[in-house]
Amino acid sequence: MRNIKVTIEYDGTNYHGWQSQNNAIAIADVVSKAASTLTNEDIKVIGASRTDVGVHAYGQVANFKTESRIPVEKFAIALNTKLPNDVVARKAEEVDETFHSRFSSIGKKYKYIIYNDKMPSAIIRNRAYHVITPLDVDQMKRAAEFLQGTKDFKAFRASGCSAMSTIRTISKSMIISDGDTITYEIEGNGFLYNMVRIIAGTLIYVGLGKIRCDEIPNIIERKDRRLAGKTAPAHGLYLVEVLF
Amino acid sequence: MRNIKVTIEYDGTNYHGWQSQNNAIAIADVVSKAASTLTNEDIKVIGASRTDVGVHAYGQVANFKTESRIPVEKFAIALNTKLPNDVVARKAEEVDETFHSRFSSIGKKYKYIIYNDKMPSAIIRNRAYHVITPLDVDQMKRAAEFLQGTKDFKAFRASGCSAMSTIRTISKSMIISDGDTITYEIEGNGFLYNMVRIIAGTLIYVGLGKIRCDEIPNIIERKDRRLAGKTAPAHGLYLVEVLF
Repeated sequence: MRNIKVTIEYDGTNYHGWQSQNNAIAIADVVSKAASTLTNEDIKVIGASRTDVGVHAYGQVANFKTESRIPVEKFAIALNTKLPNDVVARKAEEVDETFHSRFSSIGKKYKYIIYNDKMPSAIIRNRAYHVITPLDVDQMKRAAEFLQGTKDFKAFRASGCSAMSTIRTISKSMIISDGDTITYEIEGNGFLYNMVRIIAGTLIYVGLGKIRCDEIPNIIERKDRRLAGKTAPAHGLYLVEVLF
Repeated sequence: MRNIKVTIEYDGTNYHGWQSQNNAIAIADVVSKAASTLTNEDIKVIGASRTDVGVHAYGQVANFKTESRIPVEKFAIALNTKLPNDVVARKAEEVDETFHSRFSSIGKKYKYIIYNDKMPSAIIRNRAYHVITPLDVDQMKRAAEFLQGTKDFKAFRASGCSAMSTIRTISKSMIISDGDTITYEIEGNGFLYNMVRIIAGTLIYVGLGKIRCDEIPNIIERKDRRLAGKTAPAHGLYLVEVLF
């Protein structure tokens, strides 16, 4: 059996997240179906990250085993003929049989986009979170820096999170501002459930003056979800890359 | 009667262009309906530019007469409560009674976005034209410069165009490249039917090596539509601003 690793970009707007759900179309289903149709096999793809409803991806990774003889360099283009245009196979690689999208992953990159303007935008509406009140970007930049390093991120996990350990290493945590668009980039060896969205919501609270930037170390220290900001909406979040 | 000028942003993907059509929802209809509902009057808005099916706008301008006493600074926000989220009133101003969105306009700015990558993009799919073959951006930059100035643009108008004169003044014609995204910015005192899309298509032909950049003056001179490139698809085009 060949093991195929596919890098997938998607617009999450019209799907019920990555993972299969009852009575709702998930992106994993769409990719599994395309791979099944293409290979004439019954394929269930394994994804690296179970992105939530509305979350987008530039670089989700999925793998599946197949007997198909389609040359690997043609696999992505062939898959795209079976995929809707809001889910795109960007790249396909043949990997050894032990490769597993989730378990082999050693880290991920995400970004969160905020559209900071007094009026909403039609063009970017499903691609960025609209915040009306002007945000203090300098305070947000300083707050973001406090999140770098190996820390216990218990304060930044959603209640449904079942991870055994809440310690993660964040190697990049940076706010970039460009006109009315504020982008938060974060990279780490792993993320708790809703962690990026809770961090983004906390940074927005800092930008609004509801949390002081130098309170971040204390929020981390106290490990209390209630001290952090609101979970920012899904449609501003992008899974940028899965690291192996 | 008050004369209200509204600046409108829209995602043209789900509409049949700006102008009302039989049996198809146009953006003008949506705006007229929102203004009518809001004011309890029968309003038909006048737009500055009749953008085609699939074309987007950051700054379409429309005006309408009303007896409504809604304060002008609240008009845009009030209109947005009646508009779908892919059509947004960005700004409303009260203008004198002689103002007419189309006839008072002295120029327009457009941009055309090309996504130049061997694979399609899910995220930007309705917002940029995907060109697979690598484009020679330097040649495109040089070609774009030849279009600046007061010239007869007869070679760059679609067959349905009924404009009396085909002479226009283009004050800006520039290619900007940023990674896999190539943006063409053009500003002028007026545009013939499909002119920006034909110019964009011609610049793409230059980027592909099908037309040499120094042939542009000759194409202009010959006034022959057949010498220019294909009309580039609507979904890469944005009406950025209407000048008054």
